[in-house]
Amino acid sequence: MNGLYKLAELDPNLVDALSNRATELRRGATPASYEGLALGLLFLAPSLRTQASMQRAAQLLGLDLVQLSGSSMWGLETDDGVIMDSDAAEHVREAAPVLSSYVDALCVRSFARFEDLAKDLADDVFKGFSQHATVPVVSMESALFHPLQALADRATLDQLKVSSRAKLVLTWTWHPRSLPHAVANSTVCMATQRGMDVVLACPEGWELHDSVIAEAEALAAANGGSFQVTNDPDATKDADIVYAKSWASLESWGDHSAESFKKLELRDWQVTPDSMASGARFMHCLPVRRNVVVSDAVLDGPASLVLRQAENRLHAQTALLEHMLCATAGCESPLALPEEVGA
Amino acid sequence: MNGLYKLAELDPNLVDALSNRATELRRGATPASYEGLALGLLFLAPSLRTQASMQRAAQLLGLDLVQLSGSSMWGLETDDGVIMDSDAAEHVREAAPVLSSYVDALCVRSFARFEDLAKDLADDVFKGFSQHATVPVVSMESALFHPLQALADRATLDQLKVSSRAKLVLTWTWHPRSLPHAVANSTVCMATQRGMDVVLACPEGWELHDSVIAEAEALAAANGGSFQVTNDPDATKDADIVYAKSWASLESWGDHSAESFKKLELRDWQVTPDSMASGARFMHCLPVRRNVVVSDAVLDGPASLVLRQAENRLHAQTALLEHMLCATAGCESPLALPEEVGA
Amino acid sequence: MNGLYKLAELDPNLVDALSNRATELRRGATPASYEGLALGLLFLAPSLRTQASMQRAAQLLGLDLVQLSGSSMWGLETDDGVIMDSDAAEHVREAAPVLSSYVDALCVRSFARFEDLAKDLADDVFKGFSQHATVPVVSMESALFHPLQALADRATLDQLKVSSRAKLVLTWTWHPRSLPHAVANSTVCMATQRGMDVVLACPEGWELHDSVIAEAEALAAANGGSFQVTNDPDATKDADIVYAKSWASLESWGDHSAESFKKLELRDWQVTPDSMASGARFMHCLPVRRNVVVSDAVLDGPASLVLRQAENRLHAQTALLEHMLCATAGCESPLALPEEVGA
Repeated sequence: MNGLYKLAELDPNLVDALSNRATELRRGATPASYEGLALGLLFLAPSLRTQASMQRAAQLLGLDLVQLSGSSMWGLETDDGVIMDSDAAEHVREAAPVLSSYVDALCVRSFARFEDLAKDLADDVFKGFSQHATVPVVSMESALFHPLQALADRATLDQLKVSSRAKLVLTWTWHPRSLPHAVANSTVCMATQRGMDVVLACPEGWELHDSVIAEAEALAAANGGSFQVTNDPDATKDADIVYAKSWASLESWGDHSAESFKKLELRDWQVTPDSMASGARFMHCLPVRRNVVVSDAVLDGPASLVLRQAENRLHAQTALLEHMLCATAGCESPLALPEEVGA
Repeated sequence: MNGLYKLAELDPNLVDALSNRATELRRGATPASYEGLALGLLFLAPSLRTQASMQRAAQLLGLDLVQLSGSSMWGLETDDGVIMDSDAAEHVREAAPVLSSYVDALCVRSFARFEDLAKDLADDVFKGFSQHATVPVVSMESALFHPLQALADRATLDQLKVSSRAKLVLTWTWHPRSLPHAVANSTVCMATQRGMDVVLACPEGWELHDSVIAEAEALAAANGGSFQVTNDPDATKDADIVYAKSWASLESWGDHSAESFKKLELRDWQVTPDSMASGARFMHCLPVRRNVVVSDAVLDGPASLVLRQAENRLHAQTALLEHMLCATAGCESPLALPEEVGA
Repeated sequence: MNGLYKLAELDPNLVDALSNRATELRRGATPASYEGLALGLLFLAPSLRTQASMQRAAQLLGLDLVQLSGSSMWGLETDDGVIMDSDAAEHVREAAPVLSSYVDALCVRSFARFEDLAKDLADDVFKGFSQHATVPVVSMESALFHPLQALADRATLDQLKVSSRAKLVLTWTWHPRSLPHAVANSTVCMATQRGMDVVLACPEGWELHDSVIAEAEALAAANGGSFQVTNDPDATKDADIVYAKSWASLESWGDHSAESFKKLELRDWQVTPDSMASGARFMHCLPVRRNVVVSDAVLDGPASLVLRQAENRLHAQTALLEHMLCATAGCESPLALPEEVGA
């Protein structure tokens, strides 16, 4: 396994095995010990869960941590051939190989910047690191995907024995800010890869990017599920799983005023007890705006899975790093995989 | 021991034992080894001593460190029932249990914010973590108290065999900024709990909060000491211990201009050699404004205990964590405690 | 060895031995194990390579890391006798001994601040720490020198068996910002100490400080090399090693507008393939402005040593810390040194 950009790039059998291993670790299995290896953590965007759970996952595996944050390093350039006479002092063509010479794997968080849609759609920062590093690079959320959240969410669904044919509705919600698509994209792909009946519910104009829609459709077809898009906020009402998330409209990318105006009448897109069928479960990646994205009554009630999702971040990441670094450490992977699945 | 909010909440015998253990550690005793446990450090405010000494204390105990700072995470909400459509993106109701699922104990620094006196008096951020975490939470300075400083100061006094009936004067000093009450509150409570004769000297209008005055009076009564408040700057002149600190007036909380105007004529509230009796000792929690709070002549002379206080931060914290985590680690506490003292 | 301010303060035999040890470590030699010792890292300025490689070097030696950054601590005062009623809340007279009581050695990064040339020339922050600490203090780049870069560069030259009489030209380049002199100063001193034929090429008005010129001349004389200054940008054309770096003019220190105006016509001071003889090598400390300081064609071509220089940061620092802390750890230094060389 040479890094991780999105969960759907992994063989479904490997995703199964990683989810199962996460659950074993949650139940107290002993992680492998990779003492002497080092993991780099590079945060170019804020984080609570990811920072804390990646630090802990690395420690459980005996890894040393080399930690950098965007605020303590140089502005980063990703374009090729550019004359660097503006703000950016360091090019990813140096940053990536240099860090590779200090660590055995590199984890990078870099959000969509909302300055240039084309760059965000190209996921230029993560791809720059991935292309120029000489060690595996793992996304801790890029502009387009959040594979570690997706793996934790997958483990959460598996632990609760949610049927692979259950209905999961990812619903857009109102939010005071304009947010990236990474979690939304990852959620529809994770759920369709799991074979679920997946619905994306959002106001007109807030559909995810065509390439993601196409990927979710292909994953649904390949894994026995379905994928539909609707503009009906009531789509959540017969869901088994309601996954809430806000994201920006591709039609007004980077134009916060235009987006705010367009969504003035959309504050009703909030998950409340009325949005949920009896027995339905609520998911969110956190942090969540209480009584904006979801009402307290849902979040503090028995339907909410958000704390388990967050806890599973630790176990999913431990499982992933354990598998990814086994060859570097000269160990066998603890995963039970069918023979045909490549590492 | 389930976390620590203020030193005075501990049984006086436990405080004695922790102070003695800090001194043993200072003299080279070997700390317990708690390998495999993890300590979370969450800094929502600046720090030099606390950051460095908490990192080191944890390492001496073999703990793994999960470290977060306010600047790298999301804005935090603490109010219940609020509609989160403003700046704060994360509620302590999620942050606290989520972090609890990654670590065995959590240490939080969160200063008074001077925006809302009621919230600062309620110590909303620390109390929010304490209430919603599922692991012990230790204050690394909250709006109202700084128990780790108090324990280090207590160990400093004990190491120097300062009589329990010595006179300690906590004197307000002029300062260009408006500062929180945490160290001042903690100092009067630590010293009265130690049975000392304690005087709070400050200009009119700068008295500490009534609840703290009442607590110090109760501690003095219970432990054989005394507590008085005076507006006389000369109160330091017959003290055995002069403890200097600046803090904001409760009458103009959050109004820096009003406070600055009120204290225009108060720059004489500075500790100089003239403020000190022969043989008296000088204490301060650091950082200290030289020649504003205290003159160089005092700070650089033999009366100053500030470097020993700072060094004792390390030993006091090691002692505290060692005792607090012994049950989690499945060990006996190294403290020699009377049987009736609860852990 | 009691800390490190600049490479030239070390005995040339010690520099040789450290360079050799760095190369051994690069080839897989096992570093010494100093478990139980702690290294403080204090970053008062941004960093990518230095942060990451110092963290890793310490881990390879089994050291615990106590880490602080300028953004998370108090403003620092360095002047003696000052009335601290302005921005700085902490004096180095406290910060240095306090941190010394927590760690076994302290590494400090503090750039020139361009506010007061006299202070930058006095290297007040690093010297303040060095003077008031009670443990060895290592510069991770001060206002005037960058000894760890110099040692890594030295090891790079030695690994490639560059002749000690090769010609190294340090050439100034245009840059949109005004940068410190530390790397330039360190490069001319490292190369003259190595006995090389060294040329400093810069526009009139951008010469390094007289004291550095004098030091480089003395090092050249003592070590069998030569040192010259020229204002001719073509000086690189017969160099074996072209080392590029931009730095501010001492004539307009802290006046960015004046400097920008003075260098309006100097954008041609850029290293391109035309600047380089066949077989010449290109060096830079990184981060580097592509197509401003050096063209892509040079940086991405076989002449470039920049990635090896950066990798050698790790090995050079491991070698340095290993030697510096051997006595503290109660070990023998792994360096093979002539008997007369002091530690």
